[in-house]
Amino acid sequence: MLTEGRAGGGVVAADHVSLRRNNLSVVLRHVRAAGPRSRARIAAETGLNKATVSSLVAELVDRGLLREGRAESERGALGRPGQLVELDGSAVCGVGAEINVDYLAVTALDLGGEIVTERRVPLDVAHLDPGTTLDQLAELISGAVRVVEARGGEAAGVTLAVPGLVQSTTGSLRLAPNLGWAELPIVDLMQERLDAPAYPVRVDNEANLAALAAYTELRKDTDGKAEDIVLLTGAVGVGGGMVAGGHLLPGGHGFSGEVGHMPVAPAGGICGCGRTGCWETVVGLTALLNKATDPDDPVRDPSLDVEQRLAEITRRAEAGEARTLRALADVGTWLGIGGAILVNILNPNALVLGGYFAVLGPWLKEPLESAIRDRVIAPDGGGCRVVQSELGFTAAVRGGALISLDQVFLDPTLIGRDATGVAQ
Amino acid sequence: MLTEGRAGGGVVAADHVSLRRNNLSVVLRHVRAAGPRSRARIAAETGLNKATVSSLVAELVDRGLLREGRAESERGALGRPGQLVELDGSAVCGVGAEINVDYLAVTALDLGGEIVTERRVPLDVAHLDPGTTLDQLAELISGAVRVVEARGGEAAGVTLAVPGLVQSTTGSLRLAPNLGWAELPIVDLMQERLDAPAYPVRVDNEANLAALAAYTELRKDTDGKAEDIVLLTGAVGVGGGMVAGGHLLPGGHGFSGEVGHMPVAPAGGICGCGRTGCWETVVGLTALLNKATDPDDPVRDPSLDVEQRLAEITRRAEAGEARTLRALADVGTWLGIGGAILVNILNPNALVLGGYFAVLGPWLKEPLESAIRDRVIAPDGGGCRVVQSELGFTAAVRGGALISLDQVFLDPTLIGRDATGVAQ
Repeated sequence: MLTEGRAGGGVVAADHVSLRRNNLSVVLRHVRAAGPRSRARIAAETGLNKATVSSLVAELVDRGLLREGRAESERGALGRPGQLVELDGSAVCGVGAEINVDYLAVTALDLGGEIVTERRVPLDVAHLDPGTTLDQLAELISGAVRVVEARGGEAAGVTLAVPGLVQSTTGSLRLAPNLGWAELPIVDLMQERLDAPAYPVRVDNEANLAALAAYTELRKDTDGKAEDIVLLTGAVGVGGGMVAGGHLLPGGHGFSGEVGHMPVAPAGGICGCGRTGCWETVVGLTALLNKATDPDDPVRDPSLDVEQRLAEITRRAEAGEARTLRALADVGTWLGIGGAILVNILNPNALVLGGYFAVLGPWLKEPLESAIRDRVIAPDGGGCRVVQSELGFTAAVRGGALISLDQVFLDPTLIGRDATGVAQ
Repeated sequence: MLTEGRAGGGVVAADHVSLRRNNLSVVLRHVRAAGPRSRARIAAETGLNKATVSSLVAELVDRGLLREGRAESERGALGRPGQLVELDGSAVCGVGAEINVDYLAVTALDLGGEIVTERRVPLDVAHLDPGTTLDQLAELISGAVRVVEARGGEAAGVTLAVPGLVQSTTGSLRLAPNLGWAELPIVDLMQERLDAPAYPVRVDNEANLAALAAYTELRKDTDGKAEDIVLLTGAVGVGGGMVAGGHLLPGGHGFSGEVGHMPVAPAGGICGCGRTGCWETVVGLTALLNKATDPDDPVRDPSLDVEQRLAEITRRAEAGEARTLRALADVGTWLGIGGAILVNILNPNALVLGGYFAVLGPWLKEPLESAIRDRVIAPDGGGCRVVQSELGFTAAVRGGALISLDQVFLDPTLIGRDATGVAQ
């Protein structure tokens, strides 16, 4: 029933302790969404009374989550200017850590979403055993947590981003075909390597996390309006992440977003999954390289990383090289053929291009939009716009850091329990 | 951000008035989901204290939404047996009203989801002008409301179910190809015909409403656990409705679920939408009839309604008629080919067969499941089971009635404002 849906799928009763916690969360989330503002304005905008807001802000300042900012200087403010309060970036960070086919990455974001530290290390993950890769990732994570702690902050949690089928509830990776990994208790393995840390460790699918990051970015451009989005991550494989009604759609068992295997090209090639004509056989990076280049083309040199490869493709497209442009137009059209299926099913406000699709977006976008217009049943292509993500290959790790911060925004009392904040 | 998502996409602050309203809603929804029970048990299960529950129940009884039931007789109940409280079916009804290609239907459900009145009238809607059809539907709705009022109840609202693209927010029907309707302010037109009624009138897509009804039914079998579902409605066209995380996925502009136009059969026939090879050209009812029968077969007689047609197909399948069985197996396989796309994208717990797919489910299910097992990337077909809806062609109108009741469950103070219930 919709009713229960609004309450997150269950019936939630509120007593006065949870009311206080809820209102702390409301104020903290409101300042994040709406930006620095006075206590009076927070009261007006949330419907809470001013005395309550003052007490809530005091507790959030005590917990190190908000801080006093500059004095209000807005036109039309009545009475004497109030002091603004803003998110305090120093107390707590969320950490995202990504394992992908050819790199590892880690990012720590403060409460305001600002980068505190980030690293990215090329690594031929598909040819290493999982233990070695996880050892190296654990070192990157520990390094990031040390940077956070050196600033006097604490890690709210670490979220691992993996390109594969993940069971978040049990912390296990079921299958990551492009890594060659299967059935790994990845959260347990990482917790061992981190010496059973105080912060929680989770795992999620990289396209889901990238979608979350893209959604958060887009919201800044839509005045905080929650839009439905479908994010497509283009790499060797193609993944999809969906946000609807303000939250991720993980699916009943966490396996949603396997868009790369839509059978759109019956005459197409053999897919890594063993089937014929999957979408990723016509829009994956390998398909683009096969269309745009000969086998001995230097752009296919295995020692190049993906960004070097894409820089070369971009250079050729900018130079008007005919074969490159034809290949990009072809991939763009196929992207629209599969994209139209997603738009017909989900009717998102935006189809967001991530990964290599974002980098080559200037050439993919027009044939993609044209294919969507032709194939979507709803008027005006369902009102769906095509957007290039500005996060590129950092979206998943950023989404991991954001989701790690989520628990703090839901329950600010998790942080600074030793502070002087009152309990009620 | 997930955080806001949990609160329905926005930041919601709670004061003591909204706390009371929230808790009335919690108790009412809990009794609906969990069944008749004592005040003590409601307190234990919701986490509210007993005195608060007694006061909330008293107000809900005053408002005519709960009533005293039989005495508790459960094993293991401590102390003297408590009085059970249960939903009171007499005060309020939700009304659903459906326009489909060849019939109109109306259903009024009481708070407990029991049918108070229902009617279904064959009508060749596609060959009438919209005004005539809406006149007839308005009469059916008025008749149902009179039945509700004659029992001393009131209508909480009316929801129109339409097989087409609907903009719920503006109450307009954008396009219903199989009715031949486009750009109708359908809610306004109906409100005029109902003489500006006191209850709200809404419109939604029939597959969305059918999905909501199917979800509500399934929840009874899963101990109230909220599952993600995709419902497929099989008629001349094929529609999809999706429930995830406890709520409908309407899409950014309300146009989701256009699954009938997935391009799965490039060698297939011409679709009503003008394209070639859409899913409904291989799984719609017309496709089945074309495969199973010759043009002069009496089962294609235009004067038959869909249930008579399906009864005859069922008779032939039960008799082991080879051509009918081949046609059903073929449709089942195509159903699985498109179904696998949906399961790969959405990973629902259940794929629910509605409309004619439900009626002929015994023959469609096995080839469908086999096609899904072959094509879904996640282990064990993503854990998705195939379920035949028991609601058949009544799902949409039932979903309309349920969604009409939703506002009452969200805010019980909407009903019985003249009752003696205290305001706080």
